[in-house]
Amino acid sequence: MAACKELTTDLVPEFVSSVDTILCDCDGVIWQGKNVVPGAQEALKKLRQKGKKIFFVTNNSTKSRKQYMQKFTSLGFEVYEEEIVCTAFAAAAYLKYGLKYEGKVYLMGSAGMEEELELMGYQHTGTGPDPSPSYDLDKWAALPIDPEVKAVVMGFDEHLSYNKLVKAGTYLNDPNCIFVATNEDMRYPYQGKVIIPGTGVLVQAVRAAAGRDPVVLGKPNRYLFESIMETHQGINPQRTVMIGDRMSTDILMGKNCGLKTLLVETGINSGEEAKEHQRSNSIERQKMVPDYYIKSLGALGDGIV
Amino acid sequence: MAACKELTTDLVPEFVSSVDTILCDCDGVIWQGKNVVPGAQEALKKLRQKGKKIFFVTNNSTKSRKQYMQKFTSLGFEVYEEEIVCTAFAAAAYLKYGLKYEGKVYLMGSAGMEEELELMGYQHTGTGPDPSPSYDLDKWAALPIDPEVKAVVMGFDEHLSYNKLVKAGTYLNDPNCIFVATNEDMRYPYQGKVIIPGTGVLVQAVRAAAGRDPVVLGKPNRYLFESIMETHQGINPQRTVMIGDRMSTDILMGKNCGLKTLLVETGINSGEEAKEHQRSNSIERQKMVPDYYIKSLGALGDGIV
Repeated sequence: MAACKELTTDLVPEFVSSVDTILCDCDGVIWQGKNVVPGAQEALKKLRQKGKKIFFVTNNSTKSRKQYMQKFTSLGFEVYEEEIVCTAFAAAAYLKYGLKYEGKVYLMGSAGMEEELELMGYQHTGTGPDPSPSYDLDKWAALPIDPEVKAVVMGFDEHLSYNKLVKAGTYLNDPNCIFVATNEDMRYPYQGKVIIPGTGVLVQAVRAAAGRDPVVLGKPNRYLFESIMETHQGINPQRTVMIGDRMSTDILMGKNCGLKTLLVETGINSGEEAKEHQRSNSIERQKMVPDYYIKSLGALGDGIV
Repeated sequence: MAACKELTTDLVPEFVSSVDTILCDCDGVIWQGKNVVPGAQEALKKLRQKGKKIFFVTNNSTKSRKQYMQKFTSLGFEVYEEEIVCTAFAAAAYLKYGLKYEGKVYLMGSAGMEEELELMGYQHTGTGPDPSPSYDLDKWAALPIDPEVKAVVMGFDEHLSYNKLVKAGTYLNDPNCIFVATNEDMRYPYQGKVIIPGTGVLVQAVRAAAGRDPVVLGKPNRYLFESIMETHQGINPQRTVMIGDRMSTDILMGKNCGLKTLLVETGINSGEEAKEHQRSNSIERQKMVPDYYIKSLGALGDGIV
C-alpha cells in the first residue's frame, strides 16, 4: 500500500535525488486555467538545473503541441516541444506509429487535433458545427458517409451534435473501423456553480451509439508513458515521478506504470482525500493513493536546495 | 422458463380467449416507420370485436398523444386518446401525478414533449437548437442557469449540443433536482447501413455529465403499465398480453409486469433469436424470452375466428 506521506520541506532533497525523470500534469499543477500556480516556473527551473528530464503529460485534447508551446511560453515557462505529451499529438502518433493506419479519419475534436493529424499526413473530415435537420429518419439515413473513413478519432468537441453521433455510430458499425479516444475525464476542474463536462461525457455518447469501446490513450492508461519510453532512451520507471492533481487519472497512471507518485493540492484532490482513499476498504480507491502529497509545485521548489 | 412457442393459426383462438387486455407496441408491430404492417388494422378490429381492451404502449418520445392520434387515424387505425400510452405523455404525467412537481422544467426533447408538459400546466425551457460558442470555459461558466428549474426531463432531442450538456449537468448537480428520461432505446429500428441512435445514446451523455442516473419511464421498466393500472379499473396482469418486436424492451417489460408476452417478427427480433436466448445459459437473456412468437400482427388476426 502507498505511504501517502506529506512531502515536507525537509524531505524534498532526498525525494528529488531519488528521481531522474519528472512527468508533470498541467492544469491544476503548473497552471489553473489561465493563471500560473505560484512558484511553478521556479520549481521547474530548479529541477532542470538538477539535471532532471521533464515531460508535460496532459489529457486535454484541445491544443496541439505547437499551441501548447505558445501557452507555456506566454506564461513564462521554459519548454521544448518534445517535452509536451498531449493527447491531440498522441492520437495522431498512435494512428501512425501504433496502428500504421493509412486511411482517412472521421474526427470529433478541436483545431489542435486537426493540426496534429495533418502533421502526420492524415486527411480528415467531421470537425466544426454539424447541426441536425429537424426530426426525420429518412434525412439521417441519407447523411453522407465517406467510404474512405476507417477510423473514428475523438477528443473534446464543443460542436457535438446528433448528426455527428449518427455518422460516428455508422462508421463504427463496421467492426474493422478503428475507434480512438483521447481521454475520459468527465469534468473540467473549473471552480464555480456551472458543471463543465469533459471529453469523457462525449465518449459515453459515441460509445453508446457505436455499441463498443474505444482505445483510450490518456491517463490513467499507460499509453502516454509508454510512448515516452519508446521515443526516449534510458528512462527508468522506478526513478520517474508522476506529479498531478487528480488521483483518478494522474496518480492512477503513475501506479499503473510503476512510477513514484506525488499529489499536489492546487487542483482537484487534497492530501486529506488521498488519506480517505487509503483508509477505505476499496481496492479501487486504494489504487489511487499517491506515495506523497504536497501543497503545491511551488512548495516542492522551495525545498530544492 | 418461458415456452417460446410459435403461435400457429390453430392456437390463436385459445390464446385470444385467455386475455382481456392487449398492450401493443407501435413501430415494428402495427407500422414500420411510415408504412402499415399488412393486416394490422384488421387484427386490431377483430380484437376490439372480441371485447378486448387495447393500449398502444410506445417508448418513442417524439410525439404527443394528440400527434399520435393523427398518425393512427391517417394510417387507417381506429384509436381513442386514452389508449395511447406514449412516453412524452408519461413524462408529464409522472411529474404531475407521480412526483407532484410544481416548478419549471429543463427539457431536452421534442415539440410533442413540450405539448404534453404544457397540457399539464408546466413552464419549460431548453428545447430547440442551442449551439455552443467556440471553446471557452469562461463562456460556458457564464451560461444562463434558471433558478426556477428543479427538474430535468429528457427524451429524444435531435438538437443535442454541448451547451445543453453543460446546462443539464449543472441543474442536476443539485441532488434535489428531478431527473426523468423517457426511455433508453439505443437505436431506431431503421433498416439500412446508417445507424440512427436513439434516446438511450443521449441519456448516456447526460447521465455522465450529471454523474447520476435518471428515473427511466419507458419499457422495459414497469411505469407505463403501472400508470395504465392506476387509471383503468379491473385490469388483470395475468389476462393481459404485451405484444412487441423487441425482446429487450417490449418482452422484458411484459415479464417484469407478470404479463403474457408475444413477439412479432416484423421488427427487431425473430423467433429464432428468442430461441437462442432460451438456449443460452444467461439469466439475463432468458428473462427476455417471450411466451409465444408469431410472424406478424396480421397473422394473429388471420387466426381469430
